[in-house]
Amino acid sequence: MALVVQKYGGTSVGTIERVKNVAHRVVATKEAGNEVVVVVSAMAGETNRLLALAREVMEAPDERESDVLLASGEQVSASLLTLAIKDLGQHARSFLGYQVRIETDSTYGRARIKSIDATRILRALKGGEIVVVAGFQGVDEEGNITTLGRGGSDTSAVALAAALSAGACEIYTDVDGVYTTDPSICPNARKLARISYDEMLEMASMGAKVLQIRSVELAKKFSVPVHVRSSFSDVAGTWLVEEDESMDAVLVSGVTYDKNEAKITVLKVPDRPGLAAQIFTPIAEANIVVDMIIQNASEDGTTDLTFTVPKEDYKKAISIVHEIAPAIQAKGVTVDPNIAKVSIVGVGMRAHAGVAAKMFQVLARGGINIEMISTSEIKVSVVIDEKYTELAVRVLHEAFIENQGSL
Amino acid sequence: MALVVQKYGGTSVGTIERVKNVAHRVVATKEAGNEVVVVVSAMAGETNRLLALAREVMEAPDERESDVLLASGEQVSASLLTLAIKDLGQHARSFLGYQVRIETDSTYGRARIKSIDATRILRALKGGEIVVVAGFQGVDEEGNITTLGRGGSDTSAVALAAALSAGACEIYTDVDGVYTTDPSICPNARKLARISYDEMLEMASMGAKVLQIRSVELAKKFSVPVHVRSSFSDVAGTWLVEEDESMDAVLVSGVTYDKNEAKITVLKVPDRPGLAAQIFTPIAEANIVVDMIIQNASEDGTTDLTFTVPKEDYKKAISIVHEIAPAIQAKGVTVDPNIAKVSIVGVGMRAHAGVAAKMFQVLARGGINIEMISTSEIKVSVVIDEKYTELAVRVLHEAFIENQGSL
Repeated sequence: MALVVQKYGGTSVGTIERVKNVAHRVVATKEAGNEVVVVVSAMAGETNRLLALAREVMEAPDERESDVLLASGEQVSASLLTLAIKDLGQHARSFLGYQVRIETDSTYGRARIKSIDATRILRALKGGEIVVVAGFQGVDEEGNITTLGRGGSDTSAVALAAALSAGACEIYTDVDGVYTTDPSICPNARKLARISYDEMLEMASMGAKVLQIRSVELAKKFSVPVHVRSSFSDVAGTWLVEEDESMDAVLVSGVTYDKNEAKITVLKVPDRPGLAAQIFTPIAEANIVVDMIIQNASEDGTTDLTFTVPKEDYKKAISIVHEIAPAIQAKGVTVDPNIAKVSIVGVGMRAHAGVAAKMFQVLARGGINIEMISTSEIKVSVVIDEKYTELAVRVLHEAFIENQGSL
Repeated sequence: MALVVQKYGGTSVGTIERVKNVAHRVVATKEAGNEVVVVVSAMAGETNRLLALAREVMEAPDERESDVLLASGEQVSASLLTLAIKDLGQHARSFLGYQVRIETDSTYGRARIKSIDATRILRALKGGEIVVVAGFQGVDEEGNITTLGRGGSDTSAVALAAALSAGACEIYTDVDGVYTTDPSICPNARKLARISYDEMLEMASMGAKVLQIRSVELAKKFSVPVHVRSSFSDVAGTWLVEEDESMDAVLVSGVTYDKNEAKITVLKVPDRPGLAAQIFTPIAEANIVVDMIIQNASEDGTTDLTFTVPKEDYKKAISIVHEIAPAIQAKGVTVDPNIAKVSIVGVGMRAHAGVAAKMFQVLARGGINIEMISTSEIKVSVVIDEKYTELAVRVLHEAFIENQGSL
């Protein structure tokens, strides 16, 4: 008898009809001879509705109380799903974060799971019950309710799968798997049958937005096999698994893009030690996450320093840079919010030289100018003019995914 | 420095605007030098909305899961009110049932409070915080969420006031106190400044519906002074207090009515021991609460047995009686759903004979026929034809309340 953890996202339980559909799927899994633990998100739209209420009361809502408020969303969906399962004649029982108990640190709004006590879940499973756990929530040492941040139910599910040594963690969502790129941009995008944890980490952080990054990190850490699939069909989705040798044969698994960054350049700064720290310390203190950073010293002893920040933060970043510009003797500051970051990701890169070079050739042939470059072991990213995003994704997908052998 | 427990009902926190008004009142109480513990109900309509969702999923929703679902309503209002208080610059903290901890038995849907551990609340108060407690909910020994039944937040508030030895328990609601009778029927109804626990028990159980009965029982048991008042005005409401001598001078404190019962008569049953048990055991087993019972033996060795049940249950009760009719040799069964029970309540009755007689005279003068009579130490109830309800209330109110001295 296998133990399966299934997680259903907000759209999968967005209406009572859908809750009932999920119940049928859960019961079928149970009746196929599995022990089943289900993790649910709040019904679609509920978290935003609650957040809007909080903001009506207090402009910047207190984080402890926001978490109490938001956690009610998963409490509702967990109890409704349990009722729907019982209505089909199976034994079932809901658990909230504190009942499991899922202990986290006290960072309200984006808490990290510290430990899971699976005793009560195991007892319920032993008693023949289907277990339904409210996702997204935990409690800190003191018993205060915490939430795990957007997409946190993914992390609840993977952490439970790890704690229970589940055979698989199935993540049901509104897409049917992880694609080689965005199918709405590139009609030739195809679903990946398997992807390594590391590749998924790079894909997710680049905007693939299928899973919360932290859940992928956890899955990797505890080698939890994760199956991302659609709650609206029965077709197999994408398995997140340990990297194996067959994966090395594939140079590039996916092409991703991100239009949510802006580029800032500090012009002709006298190049001296401590410069980068002078610029980036106040930016970090303002809680702005800097993604790419490029510095090129020129012959005249000055340097241009370019970096990207989230689009929503660039005005704040610019005003910080303007403030320190006199101190670092910058000759000017420019900003470009109309950029996109396009990346290719694949564990096969590790074993093959020339992947980056081929990427640059492909973009050049498409007439696309590269403004910044950044590389990791299994990823090459370039910043380009935003208007070329779709073109870049298509030519890269064609060159690396559709015609794989041609490096 | 006094400790005050305030309870706000669903209409008092029915909108964000009202939540903010409540916050102002709470903060004013705090700034007047009191320690404040606030108990809130779910926002008006929320409990019914959740219940409707549950019934969409499962016709007769499982009680454990219903409680998980319903408890989310108070979780939302407690966190929103805490945010509103913090927005006014005061320190505040919300507590759910399990966080307090309010321990109950495991009777889902109508649990009884067994004990309250006030340690965490006292610590928060000591730290200068206003404490907001989600009403209506507790946890059983195993940590399962339980709810206390309709109006359960009243009981949460009184139980907390008892556990904290609060100076007063203020119940804010949408009426401004307890009236001598229903003002919508009798324009001369007036607000009572004080009422004894026992009178309130009789009033509440008779349909005055201002407070959950159990909260009054608790208030009596622990001598908690309860102040029932409106959250929409500042005028004093009605105090529930220990009975004192001055109250004896008043014969009747209130006139109440209840249109939610139906009358069933079993005709000409051979009168023998065990008859009543034969009839009422199966009715009790069907969870039907029987209110009044009257049996009159006649000369021919048979008896007519009449009783009242809640209107919603009378069809079920009738079918049970029909089933056992042959076994008890009943000659027939009649039912009348168009009845009303009208009562007069007052601790002064204990010391004065003739109150019941006067009641019968007053009704007779009004041309109102009495179908059943039932009395207790401080209450006389009669069952009459439903269409005379308003008339009966008015003549009794005039005779006993408006012209008190005239027995």
